[in-house]
Amino acid sequence: MPRFKLTVEYDGTGFVGWQRQETGPSVQQALEEAIARFCGHPVTVSGAGRTDAGVHALGQCAHVDLDKPWEAERVREACNFHLRPAAVSVLDAQPMDDDFHARFSATGRSYRYLILNRQGPPALLADRVWWLARALDADAMQEAAQRLVGRHDFTSFRSAQCQAKSPVKTLDRLAVRRTGEAGDCIEIAAEARSFLHNQVRAMVGTLERVGAGKWSPDHVSAALAARDRAAAGPNAPPHGLYLTGVTY
Amino acid sequence: MPRFKLTVEYDGTGFVGWQRQETGPSVQQALEEAIARFCGHPVTVSGAGRTDAGVHALGQCAHVDLDKPWEAERVREACNFHLRPAAVSVLDAQPMDDDFHARFSATGRSYRYLILNRQGPPALLADRVWWLARALDADAMQEAAQRLVGRHDFTSFRSAQCQAKSPVKTLDRLAVRRTGEAGDCIEIAAEARSFLHNQVRAMVGTLERVGAGKWSPDHVSAALAARDRAAAGPNAPPHGLYLTGVTY
Repeated sequence: MPRFKLTVEYDGTGFVGWQRQETGPSVQQALEEAIARFCGHPVTVSGAGRTDAGVHALGQCAHVDLDKPWEAERVREACNFHLRPAAVSVLDAQPMDDDFHARFSATGRSYRYLILNRQGPPALLADRVWWLARALDADAMQEAAQRLVGRHDFTSFRSAQCQAKSPVKTLDRLAVRRTGEAGDCIEIAAEARSFLHNQVRAMVGTLERVGAGKWSPDHVSAALAARDRAAAGPNAPPHGLYLTGVTY
Repeated sequence: MPRFKLTVEYDGTGFVGWQRQETGPSVQQALEEAIARFCGHPVTVSGAGRTDAGVHALGQCAHVDLDKPWEAERVREACNFHLRPAAVSVLDAQPMDDDFHARFSATGRSYRYLILNRQGPPALLADRVWWLARALDADAMQEAAQRLVGRHDFTSFRSAQCQAKSPVKTLDRLAVRRTGEAGDCIEIAAEARSFLHNQVRAMVGTLERVGAGKWSPDHVSAALAARDRAAAGPNAPPHGLYLTGVTY
């Protein structure tokens, strides 16, 4: 069974998330059905990360086993043909060795969170950003973010449903910067080998408290040390979050 | 009747265009109805440019006369409150003198056209870019674009419906560059005091022929000199076009 790695972009808006669920359409299901349509047999698509409902991806990675050694370019084209009109696009398909696993072989995951920080609500970026009208202090957010970088027990930033065995993770990068032509966007980039469930959204929700002047960077250090979800900020909404890439 | 200038962002996807029409919802109508709802009397909103169906705006400008000297911030907030859920956002409202006219006082208009130039179709930018899978030569497009800059008879780039008295316009800037993190976007920026109907889309459709290697920059010079719409390329689709700003 030849194995292929797929690099996938999607708009998370209409999906219950990456993973197949009884409650509605998932990205995994859309891909599995599209692939089954051209290869003629049922397949299982395994993703590197299980994004939540509403979360987008610019570079999700997945693998799938096909019945014969299709040409990689044909796999990409056939996926995209059969995915329409779902908001899922296969950007790349590559043949891989059998021991490649999209989830277990991954050595790094990167996410980006976008805040639109201006008075007017988003017309073009609705469902793509977290809109916050109150002016945020991005420098204070960047300072506070550095308190979270490194190897820590991230219990304070972990959802109750998180299935990871340990709450200890190494956060390699958490960088906050103003962006956009009008300087009205705040971009938060996060990189780690792996993340706990809701970790990025909980970190962003905590940094927002700092940006709004409610909390100091020291408060963020204390929230981390508390190992208590209630000590950190609320989860930022899913629609500002993008899985940007997976490294192997 | 105190006059206000509005700076407006919109997603052109669901609209028949800026201007009111019998055939469907327009941005002008959405704004007029939202404003009438809070000021209690019918209003006419005049825009700087009449964008076509599917064309977006990051900074359309318009003016409207209200019955009393509302606080500008309240005008912006009330517009946005009553515009929901339309994909139209008032970014700014400013009180103006009576002689200000959004269309006739404008001294410059800027547009941007976005081409997504990669193998995979857009998932996150559907209805926001012109997707072209074949690799385009952006340098050749930039060279050809310079043949159109300056004061010319733009008959070859004007729709049959264009109502402008003269086809002679001065194109101040037409700049093509690769952009996007993966270098898979081509952005075409156009600036002029005013444009003919469909001029930007006809210029982009012509530059695409050059980028695809079908036409040379000399062919573009000849198309301009021909003063014949059939000599230039087809109109690029509307959904890649953005009215980025209006200067006064």
